[in-house]
Amino acid sequence: MSTPSGPAADPTLDPALQSWVESANDPASDFPIQNLPLCGFVAERDGHAHAHLGVAIGDQVVDVSMLAEAGAIADDDEEVLDALSDPFWYGVLGVPGMAGRVRPVLQRFLRADTAAGQRARRVRSKALRPISETRFLEPVHVFNYTDFYASVHHATTVGSMFRPENPLLPNYKHIPIGYHGRASSLVVSGTPVRRPWGQQAPPDNEPEAGPSFAPCRMLDYELEVGAVIGVGNRMGEPIAVGEAHRHLLGLCLVNDWSARDIQKWEYQPLGPFLAKNFATTISPFIVTLEALAPFRCPAPARPKGDPCPLAYLVDEGDQAAGGFDITLEVLIRTEKMAAQGLDALRLSRGSFRHMYWTVAQLLTHHASGGCNLQPGDLLASGTVSGPEPESRGCLLELTWQGHGPDGKPRPRKPIDLPTGETRTFLADGDEVIMRGHCVRDGFRRIGFGECRGKVEPART
Amino acid sequence: MSTPSGPAADPTLDPALQSWVESANDPASDFPIQNLPLCGFVAERDGHAHAHLGVAIGDQVVDVSMLAEAGAIADDDEEVLDALSDPFWYGVLGVPGMAGRVRPVLQRFLRADTAAGQRARRVRSKALRPISETRFLEPVHVFNYTDFYASVHHATTVGSMFRPENPLLPNYKHIPIGYHGRASSLVVSGTPVRRPWGQQAPPDNEPEAGPSFAPCRMLDYELEVGAVIGVGNRMGEPIAVGEAHRHLLGLCLVNDWSARDIQKWEYQPLGPFLAKNFATTISPFIVTLEALAPFRCPAPARPKGDPCPLAYLVDEGDQAAGGFDITLEVLIRTEKMAAQGLDALRLSRGSFRHMYWTVAQLLTHHASGGCNLQPGDLLASGTVSGPEPESRGCLLELTWQGHGPDGKPRPRKPIDLPTGETRTFLADGDEVIMRGHCVRDGFRRIGFGECRGKVEPART
Repeated sequence: MSTPSGPAADPTLDPALQSWVESANDPASDFPIQNLPLCGFVAERDGHAHAHLGVAIGDQVVDVSMLAEAGAIADDDEEVLDALSDPFWYGVLGVPGMAGRVRPVLQRFLRADTAAGQRARRVRSKALRPISETRFLEPVHVFNYTDFYASVHHATTVGSMFRPENPLLPNYKHIPIGYHGRASSLVVSGTPVRRPWGQQAPPDNEPEAGPSFAPCRMLDYELEVGAVIGVGNRMGEPIAVGEAHRHLLGLCLVNDWSARDIQKWEYQPLGPFLAKNFATTISPFIVTLEALAPFRCPAPARPKGDPCPLAYLVDEGDQAAGGFDITLEVLIRTEKMAAQGLDALRLSRGSFRHMYWTVAQLLTHHASGGCNLQPGDLLASGTVSGPEPESRGCLLELTWQGHGPDGKPRPRKPIDLPTGETRTFLADGDEVIMRGHCVRDGFRRIGFGECRGKVEPART
Repeated sequence: MSTPSGPAADPTLDPALQSWVESANDPASDFPIQNLPLCGFVAERDGHAHAHLGVAIGDQVVDVSMLAEAGAIADDDEEVLDALSDPFWYGVLGVPGMAGRVRPVLQRFLRADTAAGQRARRVRSKALRPISETRFLEPVHVFNYTDFYASVHHATTVGSMFRPENPLLPNYKHIPIGYHGRASSLVVSGTPVRRPWGQQAPPDNEPEAGPSFAPCRMLDYELEVGAVIGVGNRMGEPIAVGEAHRHLLGLCLVNDWSARDIQKWEYQPLGPFLAKNFATTISPFIVTLEALAPFRCPAPARPKGDPCPLAYLVDEGDQAAGGFDITLEVLIRTEKMAAQGLDALRLSRGSFRHMYWTVAQLLTHHASGGCNLQPGDLLASGTVSGPEPESRGCLLELTWQGHGPDGKPRPRKPIDLPTGETRTFLADGDEVIMRGHCVRDGFRRIGFGECRGKVEPART
């Protein structure tokens, strides 16, 4: 599996490090002092709402903007202080290496073995707020959003619905398939998502009836991992695959909500459009490449007979640099489940390490024709589905039962919920919760927190 | 044809209006005082480059930022002055009706019958600079770029290349087909465009050879009209087709450069990606809806047997409000032609009024599922091709000769150039020039200026 090269030497990853924020020392926490994922949140001050920078630690958020302004951190490094004065991490995004410089500064403030006098203790208590009471913002402004299709398992299952004998198109194993998404409708975890209206195909046996315009009846989620660009490239200048990680700020979770009935009717010949652009949810936290270093991994070995990637997609220097071993899961809680006080039900669990194309390959391919990536751009992986049926990252796949002997699709198999309800696709009031974390011997658990979204009824 | 309702009553369109900028009074000028399209340009001041707002008039650009700062215009309307203080027209974009309020203010300054004392004459001369010596910027920052496919003639010709018996897919006449483009690589007219690299399909008779990664060999332009959003909508809130024009700031020209060989290999199943995102060129001028009012027109009558659009795409109140009658042309000048001092050669000429879907329908469809449009967003029409062969808006169509009796495509017919050169697709050094204008009895000609781009050799 994973064969990372040398990150253990990074002292900020030392598993022995503890924080004075007690909850961060719980081995089950997503946010130990070794993680420190970046976020943005609303701080109330003088009766006004301000956008502040934060990092998660245990069950708390540290108000980084306040600390920087109060001179409580980085007082010896003007450049780091400057970098933290910009909202939405602009001062960190575009500056090579800056995320790595901010990290030890924040760790120094948060370490249990940092001495604290009376004033420091006052600053500490003022700087923390519970995650559960925080109103998060998008962690960065995403001006360009791209969605890939990098799981061969997802592509094969979905392809088999339309082309049972030939599920994968001839290009799939040669070229990372991707398309541009809609940046304006990216929302942060917790934002309700309204069921879209859209055109839907006429019934198969009644093409003369024409399409209808109605609320989506096949609303789905897609579990994805998002890569956030830190440093861009100039138009016309590609990025070598061995350099890709230098352009990455970090990763987050993405729910690429999908209206399957709208998609089916509109997507030919130019791809998905309104089926996707009503909303895309991102998690509030960007887990930095520094925190993820121990969890890098190569793409899985290609099955015998698969082509080798073309040279521009092969990192001769370090095959392990491009992928990430992240355990991912999706849960659902319906309104009825919530009313009965039931926990969310897990729908799937899988790993990001099974992706056919690595994050580095996606990034390099994106820029290979000359397209300029910009700080804050989001490159989503496409639905993360693994080889096992329980690792399928969307309902379209989870409830699919293949074709019957008559060549027609078998009826979808609904998912049973503890309330007695069933789901083939999402119903109004359903909340979808995505989680991700990395574990490896000798390292603290690094988690992604949650990417949540609740379906609101369609506009009437 | 066009049956506009009442714009003749707008005094700012009075054809008798003259400007003290003499070149604007030439009937052949794109930019009479009745036009005043919005642009942005680089102004040098105190040795520094600043982004200034401008409008075109005759062969000149008026420095609107300087005029506003000097108090030479709109001194009686604080709101208009404020609107002009923001770079990139942000103060105008998001404010309903503001473009219409700015227009008479600028006209008052530019009218020949406005008295001018010595100070005013000094301001006048300082405010003008020749278009030919101006370094333009993107007229607005485009954060979201969408490309449609609204010409049925284009869709039919291109479709026939792949599906001779069934060129149009079943959805085409029901739903405006569109996809998200790449905003980061939008460039303003005059910016050189580097030939992209990309994956290309293996030869048809040698699929085992696998794809190659090489410079594009089938580089093309696409003549399009871009609609710039002025006022957006909130997520989840659609825009009625009868209200669409209230959300439009104006129109510009767009060259949607296309790498046909890259597109052919990558576009299934999720649409064009690297084939388009290496560059898209927009003209420097946004012609406002106010200037275009006399040239609104309905969509052409649908041929018998075509379906009626669904209700949300039909403007019962004013069928004429959605389309625009704009004459468009594309010219080419190769390096050899330039060296020999030859004029650019016209490749095509057509009209935007032949589009199957109107701008209003594209905008309304875009927001119909809940997608939020934002000020400055660009909605491009897709290649503008009309019913006549000479109105085809890209080389892919212009050099196409259909299929032979053997069912195989006939060889493409190269275009002869006055130098003895020929072109099937674009060669390095070729400059593509797009122009557009509107004419109608009783009104001054309203032009779009030029959208130019020269092909640079691929990176070595």
